[in-house]
Amino acid sequence: MIDFNVTVLGCGSAVPTRTAKPSSQLLSYRNKQFLIDCGEGTQMQMLKYSVRHRKLDHVLISHLHGDHFFGLIGLISTFHLTGRQSTLHIYAPGKLQALLEHQLQTTATKLSFPLIFNALEDFEEHNLYEDDYLFVRSFPLKHSTPTWGFLIKEKETKRRIDKSFIKQYRPTVNEISSILDGNSFLTKDGIFLQNSTITHDPPEVRSYAYCSDTAYEPSISKVISGVNLLYHEATFDNSLQSKAHEWLHSTAAEAAMIARRSGAKKLLIGHFSSRHNNYQLLLNEAKTVFENTTICKEGETYQVV
Amino acid sequence: MIDFNVTVLGCGSAVPTRTAKPSSQLLSYRNKQFLIDCGEGTQMQMLKYSVRHRKLDHVLISHLHGDHFFGLIGLISTFHLTGRQSTLHIYAPGKLQALLEHQLQTTATKLSFPLIFNALEDFEEHNLYEDDYLFVRSFPLKHSTPTWGFLIKEKETKRRIDKSFIKQYRPTVNEISSILDGNSFLTKDGIFLQNSTITHDPPEVRSYAYCSDTAYEPSISKVISGVNLLYHEATFDNSLQSKAHEWLHSTAAEAAMIARRSGAKKLLIGHFSSRHNNYQLLLNEAKTVFENTTICKEGETYQVV
Repeated sequence: MIDFNVTVLGCGSAVPTRTAKPSSQLLSYRNKQFLIDCGEGTQMQMLKYSVRHRKLDHVLISHLHGDHFFGLIGLISTFHLTGRQSTLHIYAPGKLQALLEHQLQTTATKLSFPLIFNALEDFEEHNLYEDDYLFVRSFPLKHSTPTWGFLIKEKETKRRIDKSFIKQYRPTVNEISSILDGNSFLTKDGIFLQNSTITHDPPEVRSYAYCSDTAYEPSISKVISGVNLLYHEATFDNSLQSKAHEWLHSTAAEAAMIARRSGAKKLLIGHFSSRHNNYQLLLNEAKTVFENTTICKEGETYQVV
Repeated sequence: MIDFNVTVLGCGSAVPTRTAKPSSQLLSYRNKQFLIDCGEGTQMQMLKYSVRHRKLDHVLISHLHGDHFFGLIGLISTFHLTGRQSTLHIYAPGKLQALLEHQLQTTATKLSFPLIFNALEDFEEHNLYEDDYLFVRSFPLKHSTPTWGFLIKEKETKRRIDKSFIKQYRPTVNEISSILDGNSFLTKDGIFLQNSTITHDPPEVRSYAYCSDTAYEPSISKVISGVNLLYHEATFDNSLQSKAHEWLHSTAAEAAMIARRSGAKKLLIGHFSSRHNNYQLLLNEAKTVFENTTICKEGETYQVV
């Protein structure tokens, strides 16, 4: 199966603790990598957990609270100092562009590589990136500052031709192309073979969704419907639900409700408040709503299956 | 003896490694703390090493290369989120003020505490701070951007009156004050006691100097003459001396030459290039010039004695 996984680099919230660093995740798909959020110390977390990032050309920043982007200038600086040459694409709220420029100017840095900044201004769903195999879509979350979630989803592929059919009938390139387009096949002996009998279903498309930071927002579930792996913030436990509502965060149970509504296969919760040191409680509360829930662990890689 | 020590939080250089985080040190004196430089991840290093910083009201930033200040906005942000109320004084190159304001504006942060910014514009020696017991002086270093070193030095205190004299002659408050001013004492029996016979020398003043980043600059030694503990950058070993000269850094041996010239009691070297993983080599090179040299170790506290 094609590689599709996400490594958690930090899953704390605004105030870091010994065990919970600010938000950052590195998503790997085939020969590409996407960094999602980049809190302070993200580059150190990569070093700590020996996370390779040589294919990292895209950085997605969900919103402009410091715990989601204060590490970006340090990472960019290290790329520069180690002689990076390939283009880095940043997708972030527009205001970050001027700040990055100010930071580079203050440190008298003329980058060794091109940096392309893509402002997340559109509040509707929007494809930020796509290639032959997958697309990255942004969608609005509900937080105290403009905030976006991200859906990274494989594209549908064509049906696959049965190997024994190819061996027996040796179709030409044109015939193969026609079968892949859904047409049936007439053999030299005049036998009509239905497309469905000589092809297999393509592998199911897989998707990953990142929803942080956000209050409980049921409309999210439609956008991420059928997601294989859902990361949803779970800043508080049930006892702090009023704080969650006040500060536009979610409880673990609310995260689980989004997982259930969207038909997710698996839920990963994180962005834990520094008030919590018993993550098991958060896990238990989520599991009462959605059984297949896992607590984010820094340095851990989760497969999107 | 009055507390006077420095805890190293990071002693790497521009590109962090697993073992060397960006520059930061916390100096403690009596009931005061001074943070010297604040590279990315400084607040996490404080958590990691359980370094308390409740008396931290002063931050000194030597220069505007990212590895010396990228962690400041995160620390300020955490102070704000945890409800700090007391004033924070920052002493840094002037350009940092506008950048901090831009960062706070971007994150829509209205600080919970007063922040007073003091620009290091004066290239002569300059007292940044003083109280009854010590002063903090800035002085120019020689680097690729305006850079300051810092000298934190105790003030001279008055002579101390011998306890047995007090017990025997029970001097009045005015008489004590007169003796502390250097006068001698006439007993009721008409005996003349020389000041030197009824007082002791005050404790010797102690000082700490921070010199990073800088090329080898002999004039530094005059400013920090007789320093008890000298931190001096030692980015490279002898084999990379030409790089040190090109980039205005020092070798370990050059750091040691400054220690010898200034009559330092002890030398602490740090700011190691990511090219080096054998710090023992740097230590050996320094020791050939100045025997009492120590390699900086993160999380370690060094006494100023």
